[in-house]
Amino acid sequence: MGGVVLSTVELPENAREVLRRLGAELYELPRLGEGGLLNILPRVEVLMCWCSGDFDLARWVNSMPNLRVIQTFSAGVDHLPFQAIPSNVRIYSNAGAYSEPVAEHAWALILALAKGLHRPTLAARDYLSNEFTSPRRIIGSTLLVLGTGGIGREIARIGKEGFRTYNIGVNRSGRQVEYFDEVYRTDELRVVIPRADIIAIALPLNKYTRNLIGAEELRLAKRGAIIVNVGRGDVVREEDLYEVLKERPDIRFGTDVWWVHDGREEIPPRTPLTTLPNFLGTPHIAGGAQRDVAERAIMRAVENVARYLRGESPLNEVDRSDYV
Amino acid sequence: MGGVVLSTVELPENAREVLRRLGAELYELPRLGEGGLLNILPRVEVLMCWCSGDFDLARWVNSMPNLRVIQTFSAGVDHLPFQAIPSNVRIYSNAGAYSEPVAEHAWALILALAKGLHRPTLAARDYLSNEFTSPRRIIGSTLLVLGTGGIGREIARIGKEGFRTYNIGVNRSGRQVEYFDEVYRTDELRVVIPRADIIAIALPLNKYTRNLIGAEELRLAKRGAIIVNVGRGDVVREEDLYEVLKERPDIRFGTDVWWVHDGREEIPPRTPLTTLPNFLGTPHIAGGAQRDVAERAIMRAVENVARYLRGESPLNEVDRSDYV
Repeated sequence: MGGVVLSTVELPENAREVLRRLGAELYELPRLGEGGLLNILPRVEVLMCWCSGDFDLARWVNSMPNLRVIQTFSAGVDHLPFQAIPSNVRIYSNAGAYSEPVAEHAWALILALAKGLHRPTLAARDYLSNEFTSPRRIIGSTLLVLGTGGIGREIARIGKEGFRTYNIGVNRSGRQVEYFDEVYRTDELRVVIPRADIIAIALPLNKYTRNLIGAEELRLAKRGAIIVNVGRGDVVREEDLYEVLKERPDIRFGTDVWWVHDGREEIPPRTPLTTLPNFLGTPHIAGGAQRDVAERAIMRAVENVARYLRGESPLNEVDRSDYV
Repeated sequence: MGGVVLSTVELPENAREVLRRLGAELYELPRLGEGGLLNILPRVEVLMCWCSGDFDLARWVNSMPNLRVIQTFSAGVDHLPFQAIPSNVRIYSNAGAYSEPVAEHAWALILALAKGLHRPTLAARDYLSNEFTSPRRIIGSTLLVLGTGGIGREIARIGKEGFRTYNIGVNRSGRQVEYFDEVYRTDELRVVIPRADIIAIALPLNKYTRNLIGAEELRLAKRGAIIVNVGRGDVVREEDLYEVLKERPDIRFGTDVWWVHDGREEIPPRTPLTTLPNFLGTPHIAGGAQRDVAERAIMRAVENVARYLRGESPLNEVDRSDYV
């Protein structure tokens, strides 16, 4: 019990109480000056952060000799400076905190692309005959989900229960997961891509998934496939995506996630992707960028830190070997 | 068994066989000249038609003394010239033939509006703060469906099973229907509108539903409500809709169906509706305008005529008193 906890964002009052009742000495970065921060850093045991714009972890981590736990508010941890974080610090992600809103967003992208809502016209004949808008059926189609974590499983659940999709999953081990009819290992990806009417990418970005989807994989997509990415932009090769969407106007692609250059997700991207008529993009707004979604996610992160303070095992420990 | 059947469209070969095996003498309008048509009209017992652009029923019905059955390819029959059709002619609709594609389209409109995909921008801050695009949650929301026929029930099913919605239905009698948590009579509409996060209109157009939704009903909508219409345009008052959407930018409205003037569905409509930022429209493409959807629907209509030819009771008999 106890310990110094630093949150890089202000916490809701009930979250503060949860931590204080467990004896934590809680500091919130927006309430500290830089002087205050320098004073408490040496004593911080638990850091709660987005660890992107809010806190320069690579800069400060050396001033935190007592740091034992990093709990992110984000589900993905691909942006953490793993090389700089001492090996005795445990890292916990907020995986699962965004499953429902992000899966809903994935389905909004899928349905909008399927029904031509990314480029609607009021001329019925054009709408129906145009390759970019002609409506496609969803019920009973085959859905391939890359990544079977919280978001991927929720995408699969909505597909199966709502739209009676036949669900194929891909994860690292090929282990069976609820709501999937078949699951394959990542190295079997090319075998399953051609079977899918819809492909939803819900993978975290790590050394195994970076650039996983390149031109060869994209070209394997079935004629008329709908592909959406709600995981991380860099799972798909940026240049390859543009090239293949240009050569394959039958593929419709939607994304909420973009490519990181110099540590920043760049929107719009470096290719003229957003000008293509078979593309629909939203600026990474499906999850934590929504205030109410972020508030719930922050509470969930606090509950995980509470597990640590009680001496229990927190959830979602990050395996650093996935990233370095 | 037997009888002269006239179809206003060419039928697939398997449909022809079904009818001929039952002894029908089958004629298809595109294969008849006007002379041929005039020759066989006096003998026609069963007419299969869209009965809109394809065949001027009001003009020809007096030349069809032996007509006993009209089977429409469309689900709605609001466009039929009921006054001109002799009372001994039974009318069967194709209700239910479009339930899945139209319900999918309704959900595409709902999700697109909920996630701001009708007016996306690549600027995240604008996207999130703009009243017209800020994302709304779907899972767990309250869904009100007006009309609990084939389409309405399928909209409710997708909501409940896919998005865990709480479903309120409205139909004429208030009778309970699968996938609805509560069902009310049409005259209780104003009581339930304020409870709904999402309202889906899936009503046929008849004398009870024409202009059912006016300014008063629209103004009762909850702040931030999403409303979609996949039934018939004239269930909603055209001018009132424009006025209320202008005064209530928090409401987002999507439609695939439009207002009929002089017997023609006019797209765009007479008000500047399509210029409003809280509006999303598609040109009546959710159902039979799609060739593959129409083909399946035509087969379904043929199966219903086969019931008649076998001396069974066809499905979906139209109660003419609903329309005149």
